[in-house]
Amino acid sequence: MKKEINIGLLGFGVVGSGVAQILLNHQTDLQHKLGVSVQIKKAMVRNLDKERDTKLSKDIFTTSLDDILSDDSIDLIVEVMGGTTDAKDAIERSLQAGKGVVTANKDVMAEVGPKLLKIADENGCDLFYEASVGGGIPLIRTLEDGLASDRIHALTGIVNGTTNFMLTKMKEENMSYDAALALATELGFAEADPTADVDGLDAARKMVILASLAFSTEVKLEDVYVRGIREIKDGDVELADRFGYTVKLAGTAKKDENGIEVAVEPVFLPNAHPLASVNNEMNAVYVYGDAVGETMFYGPGAGSLPTATSVTGDIVAACRNLLLGVNGKRKHAPQYERKVKDDAQKYSRYFHRIRVKDEVGVLTHLTSIYSDNGASLATVIQQMDENNETDLIIITHEISRKQHLDILDTLKQTDSVLGLSSYYRVEGE
Amino acid sequence: MKKEINIGLLGFGVVGSGVAQILLNHQTDLQHKLGVSVQIKKAMVRNLDKERDTKLSKDIFTTSLDDILSDDSIDLIVEVMGGTTDAKDAIERSLQAGKGVVTANKDVMAEVGPKLLKIADENGCDLFYEASVGGGIPLIRTLEDGLASDRIHALTGIVNGTTNFMLTKMKEENMSYDAALALATELGFAEADPTADVDGLDAARKMVILASLAFSTEVKLEDVYVRGIREIKDGDVELADRFGYTVKLAGTAKKDENGIEVAVEPVFLPNAHPLASVNNEMNAVYVYGDAVGETMFYGPGAGSLPTATSVTGDIVAACRNLLLGVNGKRKHAPQYERKVKDDAQKYSRYFHRIRVKDEVGVLTHLTSIYSDNGASLATVIQQMDENNETDLIIITHEISRKQHLDILDTLKQTDSVLGLSSYYRVEGE
Repeated sequence: MKKEINIGLLGFGVVGSGVAQILLNHQTDLQHKLGVSVQIKKAMVRNLDKERDTKLSKDIFTTSLDDILSDDSIDLIVEVMGGTTDAKDAIERSLQAGKGVVTANKDVMAEVGPKLLKIADENGCDLFYEASVGGGIPLIRTLEDGLASDRIHALTGIVNGTTNFMLTKMKEENMSYDAALALATELGFAEADPTADVDGLDAARKMVILASLAFSTEVKLEDVYVRGIREIKDGDVELADRFGYTVKLAGTAKKDENGIEVAVEPVFLPNAHPLASVNNEMNAVYVYGDAVGETMFYGPGAGSLPTATSVTGDIVAACRNLLLGVNGKRKHAPQYERKVKDDAQKYSRYFHRIRVKDEVGVLTHLTSIYSDNGASLATVIQQMDENNETDLIIITHEISRKQHLDILDTLKQTDSVLGLSSYYRVEGE
Repeated sequence: MKKEINIGLLGFGVVGSGVAQILLNHQTDLQHKLGVSVQIKKAMVRNLDKERDTKLSKDIFTTSLDDILSDDSIDLIVEVMGGTTDAKDAIERSLQAGKGVVTANKDVMAEVGPKLLKIADENGCDLFYEASVGGGIPLIRTLEDGLASDRIHALTGIVNGTTNFMLTKMKEENMSYDAALALATELGFAEADPTADVDGLDAARKMVILASLAFSTEVKLEDVYVRGIREIKDGDVELADRFGYTVKLAGTAKKDENGIEVAVEPVFLPNAHPLASVNNEMNAVYVYGDAVGETMFYGPGAGSLPTATSVTGDIVAACRNLLLGVNGKRKHAPQYERKVKDDAQKYSRYFHRIRVKDEVGVLTHLTSIYSDNGASLATVIQQMDENNETDLIIITHEISRKQHLDILDTLKQTDSVLGLSSYYRVEGE
């Protein structure tokens, strides 16, 4: 019987130092839960000379992955180095060396998760990745275990803290996109290069991970319709509010007999929808199951300690399996073939804001474009702004994404249309 | 290697028939997840002749527990019969017969959970009870696994669907308590005898289960301060709203260096608090951890299929353990000694509504009672109603429950006080 479990930590940044802190501070609790002590034996970093605020001995730090993988006393690798190529490599080599892996790396899991899970299965190792989605919210475990017996047919969530923080400021404090981004950067919510966040890629990766698991099928990043918050025009957030909506960067995944559809895009959510009041850097995900109905999980989407809580939760689970000798026993082959809906099979309501020439018959002409495309309209409002320019606001009944795109194409080629100011999917009604 | 897992189902009522339905409908998915089939081999019922809407063969029904326990091919007992004495007995005997148990029985788990978990440990059996709290929300699993590495210091939640449904109707449709109860009964949310729900006992039992697990200590029902919604006076819900609050039957559990405190009582929640908008029969629980910060879990608190989802989730977990031969390996001894705070150590804000004689100096006299008890006041409002009677509304700053009770005692003995109309703890500010 093991007396201790040794961890090889890859990376000692924001999450890594949080993991070290929790393992040290909660050692007695872990000892009670597991019956053995859990400690970081070695930690891989890029620069040995960097000053680190930690109680861990300086001797445990190394720059060499081999140094860690060749240490037979190390049972478990915790990958919190971030990035893709090196991290992917490190996870793969760890599994091949017969060591279980806990990772917080959404980029890697979204890109090659199924491949890595297969390698884990082949090598009889656990590969846990709770922290890759939703920071401190135990979403992966809920989908895998808590709702294991149900058939999940939809997920809707806010899974990117940075953009949610920005959208909250844009709505509540009337900030511009640029001001909100500057504030998010200043407070450490946005990275130096915020592209992955604001362009929706980070959220798309998380939705790939969640949808794969929820629907037991392989979902690829290319299957996700992605549109970031950069496309939100000045005044849109206010305009949404005037119609009773809140703009949120929503991740949605649905499954029906035609296949799956996954999207990340700024949507109009009715103000009364519970996700509309998920603010700042918080995340929340609704899970819709055939039997359970709707459940929702809410919590901090990022941050050192929340994310580290998920990592250490995985460490506890991996340690339990190691101690029982049942590590790597859960098989990950998906149940269903990958089958993705095309745009003609994806239905929703849409909000269009069109800048038009103020001339006779323009309304009749434009609405005929909708009816020619088989789209019926729920709301049509023609309004003149302070510059004497006219906006046509249209909210459709349910149409396919193909109809929506076809209409946009036709509008762009229409003489009386000066520009398509903005468009949003209307979610959750 | 097992080819199938056989279940003995105890009870075939609302939850039991839901479990049977999910196991039948999702058999392919379960087969994929577990690699074996899972089926109900026998089901114990009270009356064999009752017509049942099920695809299960009539032959599997029996009235004898012995019949099930003596069947060596049955691996797992699922107790959904409800009640206490018989259910407790059946769980105990099942465990002693070496069979794992999944139960949805909060009454039994709140009363003798620690004892049963000990018997399970001694007999190398699993005892899972996810469905005992929060219907379809995987709360137990989240506290045990997802947040395993964190130290939880507080829980706040709405854990009784019946009373939450009633309070929603009382607030949103101005229904009286009696009308709301009648509607809840008619819709099947309230049982023929609603005592356990409206008097807070059902919620208290759930808080016992959650607090024991969250704080890794034994919590007894007698440790819980319980006050039901029957004590809500006409006009209170409206009055709360006028001050920006919503009345909810909240379960709260807190832990600090002085010990734990657990309460179930109608509280004033600020309207902006997310729990204030958890409506109808839905449940939601906030979990506050040292590292994770706040997380929230929301879903249906009751109902056949939601509850059955939790039961079958437990069945999947128990089957996995059985197949790996690691059933009964998780030990349940609590980490901490039972240590309960006394009323002088429990702090909160309070709302008092006092009917007073309209005479000179009454305000000065009454507020002096508060200051004599060391309580400072946040809000004092004197108002006359349509019958020319005067209400004094007082909201205190933080005081102990002892101060609150002492003040109530003194007020009752005060001449100018005609009656203490109502009082509430103010939560979540």
